Amino acid sequence: MVAKEVIAEQLTLIGVGLIGGSLARDLKQAGAVREVVGTARTEKTLQTALDLGVIDRAEADIKAAVSGSDLVVIATPMQAMPGVLEVLDECIGDETTVTDVGSVKAYVLAAARTHMPKNISRFVPGHPVAGRENSGVAASHLNLFQNKTVILTPTEQTAPVAVDLISKMWGIAGAYIHVLDAKVHDNLLAATSHLPHVVAYALVDFLAQHEQSEMLFKLAAGGFYDFTRIASSDPVMWRDICLTNRDSVLEALKGYRTRIDHMLTAVETGDGAALLESFERSKRSRDNALKRAKPDDS
Amino acid sequence: MVAKEVIAEQLTLIGVGLIGGSLARDLKQAGAVREVVGTARTEKTLQTALDLGVIDRAEADIKAAVSGSDLVVIATPMQAMPGVLEVLDECIGDETTVTDVGSVKAYVLAAARTHMPKNISRFVPGHPVAGRENSGVAASHLNLFQNKTVILTPTEQTAPVAVDLISKMWGIAGAYIHVLDAKVHDNLLAATSHLPHVVAYALVDFLAQHEQSEMLFKLAAGGFYDFTRIASSDPVMWRDICLTNRDSVLEALKGYRTRIDHMLTAVETGDGAALLESFERSKRSRDNALKRAKPDDS
Repeated sequence: MVAKEVIAEQLTLIGVGLIGGSLARDLKQAGAVREVVGTARTEKTLQTALDLGVIDRAEADIKAAVSGSDLVVIATPMQAMPGVLEVLDECIGDETTVTDVGSVKAYVLAAARTHMPKNISRFVPGHPVAGRENSGVAASHLNLFQNKTVILTPTEQTAPVAVDLISKMWGIAGAYIHVLDAKVHDNLLAATSHLPHVVAYALVDFLAQHEQSEMLFKLAAGGFYDFTRIASSDPVMWRDICLTNRDSVLEALKGYRTRIDHMLTAVETGDGAALLESFERSKRSRDNALKRAKPDDS
Repeated sequence: MVAKEVIAEQLTLIGVGLIGGSLARDLKQAGAVREVVGTARTEKTLQTALDLGVIDRAEADIKAAVSGSDLVVIATPMQAMPGVLEVLDECIGDETTVTDVGSVKAYVLAAARTHMPKNISRFVPGHPVAGRENSGVAASHLNLFQNKTVILTPTEQTAPVAVDLISKMWGIAGAYIHVLDAKVHDNLLAATSHLPHVVAYALVDFLAQHEQSEMLFKLAAGGFYDFTRIASSDPVMWRDICLTNRDSVLEALKGYRTRIDHMLTAVETGDGAALLESFERSKRSRDNALKRAKPDDS
């Protein structure tokens, strides 16, 4: 944690789940915000967030929650963001900085341009690359973002001072900042995150629909459960990601299917050399990437 | 560990890697074998095994290693097993029980019928479902098999007393025994283990061959490395599994590709309902299987 500096008098969280809740914990712990106000879709979530000390005050609607706020973090499912942005455009102050944590940036950016045009210069699209298969405020915890990457995708319209504030916020939470073009972000994440989730869901679904499904799950070794951990992720969130990042996910899926087809042909023709070449390239790439990565990413 | 009972005066390990080494550690710790003799392809492996106390005596060739042995465990790569079985058929005693730890049972069984016909009644094909992405004797450790499943695939030719001994051996190591037909085993494992490995290798290989490969691996989150851990498994071993279990792996791969095609079509046509249905079924199946599974399989 960086030394104490107050970056906002009032942080408002719109959506209080794993990401928003964990961020609020870090900022409170660091003394970087004086008050955290939260609003969420259900009273139960708000009560849990209050009970856990993740937020200081709960508000039932967005307008009340952002009143007086100098920093707003939108941490709802992506499909809710256009509506949230529209409300914000009507009620935030001239000094309020807004960011989001959505996994697809071109979609959120387009929604902001359409629904929050008056305040677009103080909107900084963001994506902490730090999800887990758990969700909900009860799963939130300190240091979720420690040594993780947060990608910001500001545009020419974005005020540098707003980018600085959001960068500082994530820095306090221990994250590294990458600045990327929104579309570039979406292409890269389609390959590194969205595709793996679809692949894991497809694999588990193949077993789930197998005629000997129960026996298969019973026999599956520990490695299988590691491998498919991300298939326990929130289905609604991942549906939204597939729909909002359609072109990039489709391109990644097609490229991946080509690799599967190569494997299939190699198995079918008994081409051990092709299998070995691919397996060795994979192992080498992963092992090398791990060596370069920070230790806690292993 | 079960109470002390000596099940073999001399255990001989042919191949001293992660699996063989870990088994020897458990059996020695339990006092279930008086002497462990090892033979391996390289002197370096044998020296490491001696230094680690995994084996008591090293022999350079199989004949010397099995001389006087009442229990032989073949823990080499599968491609080496036909040759090993052929040598064993010439030199083991009438009371010696032999088992293996190969991942594809129909292949090993056929090899045993061809290459070890004289002693086939005392050969018990086995498969501890407990691999890790690590390999080699240096990675071996106590309790690798604790609460894991070991599948035995005896036939009508197999002596019940031999099955009992091998069951007892794995029981001492803390494993649960399943008895299955070899071909049934291969079909089931193709889906739960062989397919996931091919899928993980294909995914990492897709990223490795991507034009922005370096950036992708840099941006990949922790979840990606969890997901692809099995793509750091031994390429030679997995090539052999694909080749020796060709029909079952092919069937699993084709079934899986159909699921990928469904996903691809759903993304392409923006069919959120189909995506959600599949993602929810996957999450439910995995979460339920985990609840039924033993805690340390999570």
